[in-house]
Amino acid sequence: MVEAPLDVLRRIFQAAPFINSLGIELDAVSDGKCHTRLSLRPEHLQQTGVVHAGVIATIADHTAGGAAGSVLGSRSYPLTVEFKVNFLNPASVDRLVCHARVLKAGRTFIVSEAEVFAGKGSEEILIAKAMVTLAVVTGERNGKSGAA
Amino acid sequence: MVEAPLDVLRRIFQAAPFINSLGIELDAVSDGKCHTRLSLRPEHLQQTGVVHAGVIATIADHTAGGAAGSVLGSRSYPLTVEFKVNFLNPASVDRLVCHARVLKAGRTFIVSEAEVFAGKGSEEILIAKAMVTLAVVTGERNGKSGAA
Amino acid sequence: MVEAPLDVLRRIFQAAPFINSLGIELDAVSDGKCHTRLSLRPEHLQQTGVVHAGVIATIADHTAGGAAGSVLGSRSYPLTVEFKVNFLNPASVDRLVCHARVLKAGRTFIVSEAEVFAGKGSEEILIAKAMVTLAVVTGERNGKSGAA
Amino acid sequence: MVEAPLDVLRRIFQAAPFINSLGIELDAVSDGKCHTRLSLRPEHLQQTGVVHAGVIATIADHTAGGAAGSVLGSRSYPLTVEFKVNFLNPASVDRLVCHARVLKAGRTFIVSEAEVFAGKGSEEILIAKAMVTLAVVTGERNGKSGAA
Repeated sequence: MVEAPLDVLRRIFQAAPFINSLGIELDAVSDGKCHTRLSLRPEHLQQTGVVHAGVIATIADHTAGGAAGSVLGSRSYPLTVEFKVNFLNPASVDRLVCHARVLKAGRTFIVSEAEVFAGKGSEEILIAKAMVTLAVVTGERNGKSGAA
Repeated sequence: MVEAPLDVLRRIFQAAPFINSLGIELDAVSDGKCHTRLSLRPEHLQQTGVVHAGVIATIADHTAGGAAGSVLGSRSYPLTVEFKVNFLNPASVDRLVCHARVLKAGRTFIVSEAEVFAGKGSEEILIAKAMVTLAVVTGERNGKSGAA
Repeated sequence: MVEAPLDVLRRIFQAAPFINSLGIELDAVSDGKCHTRLSLRPEHLQQTGVVHAGVIATIADHTAGGAAGSVLGSRSYPLTVEFKVNFLNPASVDRLVCHARVLKAGRTFIVSEAEVFAGKGSEEILIAKAMVTLAVVTGERNGKSGAA
Repeated sequence: MVEAPLDVLRRIFQAAPFINSLGIELDAVSDGKCHTRLSLRPEHLQQTGVVHAGVIATIADHTAGGAAGSVLGSRSYPLTVEFKVNFLNPASVDRLVCHARVLKAGRTFIVSEAEVFAGKGSEEILIAKAMVTLAVVTGERNGKSGAA
């Protein structure tokens, strides 16, 4: 299994318009692991002032996909089949950090888990954990096909 | 159990900055059911041109919460504990429609399910299904408390 | 897609030692749907006298697999990748009934949902709902291969 | 929060008829962690010769509940609200071992995760991972109430 080079993974990660629009940034990705972060803005919030569950789910899903992509060659890419996320603590914070890792890399599917931490000043606490099942799709993933 | 009036539910639904920023709109909510829609824009997409899983998860979660809120009085509100969503078909479409309903309304938690349909022209197909567990939190939910 | 004949599906369903040992019985299976039932015995219970979550999860998973198997030909079979189950009401009852149906039949994955009802006398109430993702595995499923 | 004594937890763990009937045994439980094991017998199998998903789900759920119970006092007990389990590798093995730990202990909900390993000779590999949400129920859990 030939891993895709880091710059390819980074370009793909940042090519998703939804991820860019939220402001999610890639910190590191390799060997089945992926780290991302998000500086929170008012539009990320629920009406109660906490981060919206959808924002947390999005960073968990996309970071899990980044980890999965790092164990695939450049001729296939991961596509989320399903995920489950538990919200452990409501977060009224400055930033999110997400760490994902591959639990199982099979030929047709990959399972990753992702932990989301909330940062306020120098403190970080676990606020959510997701388990993500991804299908391995054959094809280029550079955004030209739309074939997923 | 006294249901919150529709205009209160609508005001609360639209008070979430993340939902407004995505453009998710409430169509109807009452008696444990909630219907919403989203006109897709380029920033909702994955790099492959399909709708990002995070957008689908967000409309499913928030619509499930709307259905849950409709069976609570105005002195408590639902907070997502966890959800699981299966993506059934990748969607390259014009709009999403989501229908949620309460499966179980208990004193301390509510379980809702949400189906997300993709519309292209006059056709609608099921593209995702979510099951959502929500805690019943005592308190005002008008955005002033931040106490969630 | 050629469907496996009913008697083949029934033989396969009843060939699982764990299912036989619990006493789960097949009522009907065809066209992406499957119905099963279980007469409860003392050994199916939790210490509090309700049915153990593991029994409910087992009937939901196996019935979901039966529904999935009914849309596959005889040269492939479904293998559970993951499932999620919500327990809606604790059940202190006589029997369980489970109804499953296929939500999406893809080439490599099938998604089924399963509802479990508790029966006491002539009444039936929904006590659990599961969503199940299954991989389509190529090979005979008659118990001779052990290749799953 | 006063933890229940170990002998109480052990008595409760072994009081569940379904767990006894499967043969699941408690190895250790304290401080939000629980370890269990199961020597596999023919009646635990799927027709293909691998362990049935229901057996794996049962040990994961019950061990997660054991971990949750260890952080509760003797006047309340955990009741599974929902769980999700990913099956990572089909297991044709001698025994299962399960390790669970509490991720979040709230007043009304506890979230635990459980990893199931398959043993064959001296080797152990991760075959499944579950995330479990449990409600904290007020009342005795010694099997006399049936009030869950």
